[in-house]
Amino acid sequence: MRIGVLGTGMVGKAIATKLVGLGHEVMMGSRTADNEQAAEWVSATGSGASQGTFAEAAGLGELVFNCTAGEGSLDALRSVDPDDLAGTVLIDVANPLDFSQGMPPILFVSNTDSLGEQIQGALPETKVVKALNTMNCEVMVDPAKVPGEHDVFVCGNDDEAKAQVRELLESFGWPVERIVDLGDITAARGTEMYLPLWLRLWGALQTGYFNIKVVR
Amino acid sequence: MRIGVLGTGMVGKAIATKLVGLGHEVMMGSRTADNEQAAEWVSATGSGASQGTFAEAAGLGELVFNCTAGEGSLDALRSVDPDDLAGTVLIDVANPLDFSQGMPPILFVSNTDSLGEQIQGALPETKVVKALNTMNCEVMVDPAKVPGEHDVFVCGNDDEAKAQVRELLESFGWPVERIVDLGDITAARGTEMYLPLWLRLWGALQTGYFNIKVVR
Repeated sequence: MRIGVLGTGMVGKAIATKLVGLGHEVMMGSRTADNEQAAEWVSATGSGASQGTFAEAAGLGELVFNCTAGEGSLDALRSVDPDDLAGTVLIDVANPLDFSQGMPPILFVSNTDSLGEQIQGALPETKVVKALNTMNCEVMVDPAKVPGEHDVFVCGNDDEAKAQVRELLESFGWPVERIVDLGDITAARGTEMYLPLWLRLWGALQTGYFNIKVVR
Repeated sequence: MRIGVLGTGMVGKAIATKLVGLGHEVMMGSRTADNEQAAEWVSATGSGASQGTFAEAAGLGELVFNCTAGEGSLDALRSVDPDDLAGTVLIDVANPLDFSQGMPPILFVSNTDSLGEQIQGALPETKVVKALNTMNCEVMVDPAKVPGEHDVFVCGNDDEAKAQVRELLESFGWPVERIVDLGDITAARGTEMYLPLWLRLWGALQTGYFNIKVVR
């Protein structure tokens, strides 16, 4: 499959590398076509990996990941031709973290709105699925990094899009019974607002290799 | 031990009943000394149970639980003589839920502040420990209601107070290794902001008998 990965940070690299490993053709998108981080990733990864602008990556992708920093997500997506994303599944992995006031970051949108909803609002023809934003990026693409059972949340307005994301998550190693569908895209408020607890747990546990399991 | 439980709703009743069952002397506090809910609870519970105003319950308690609805917590605590709570451990179980805009509720404080911090700020001589606010009240007092391992979070500025709360939680049935200390009271932002995710899980799972386990 041709997949666009928007973002050249740790999350983008982890996702893009995993996807190439699974045999997908991946273009890493960034603000400029000659981004150094993306160039490094392409040369380290080889066959199946390419780079381009956000618009080029989104245009190429049959499926697109938003792995940009939350603060830049809407700008990045505004640089894309909305027609290129009409009908496309966009997996939004970003969190609305604002580091401008120091650590811990606060959320620049929460409570009555979410980044996932803002992205869906900006791209009404796109099938936005919020997923994977509740954990370290190494755990996202290799759930076995945390031993035992633990969960990944998905939400979005389109059931077929969520089914496609579920399949992709299974290919990442997520057991289907550990993929929890929280409903429509407004549930992104819940998974994004979990971040402050995640950050506290990170501090208390002194490791990013953890996740939560819903026990019932 | 003499314990004051502020609040006559489901949470207050569950906590107060558990405490009486464990042999504590419990006064349920409410706005007025003749609250009907509290009177019903006292007559159903019998020996060890009494009722009074918020001020009377706080005055009696060597330890105090805040189980009022979040919106009423600060008012309830303002009706208490601060001297009566100086040096006292106050376990804050409340969540800052605002139902005025319908379901799901939003949080009336979050992100850069929390109800736990506001209570600690209003009662600087009191040892506020936020705990148990991340689950259904039946699970709070009987963790076996959810089979298997799952976690309860505590945070607060005073280590001895947290140790005392840990002991009390153990008496409720929480294994000591499932009591996660998140640090100082600012971590209440994390556990309170988890509520929107909890509410979505409640909707998705169609039961309140669930909790999360931190897996690492």
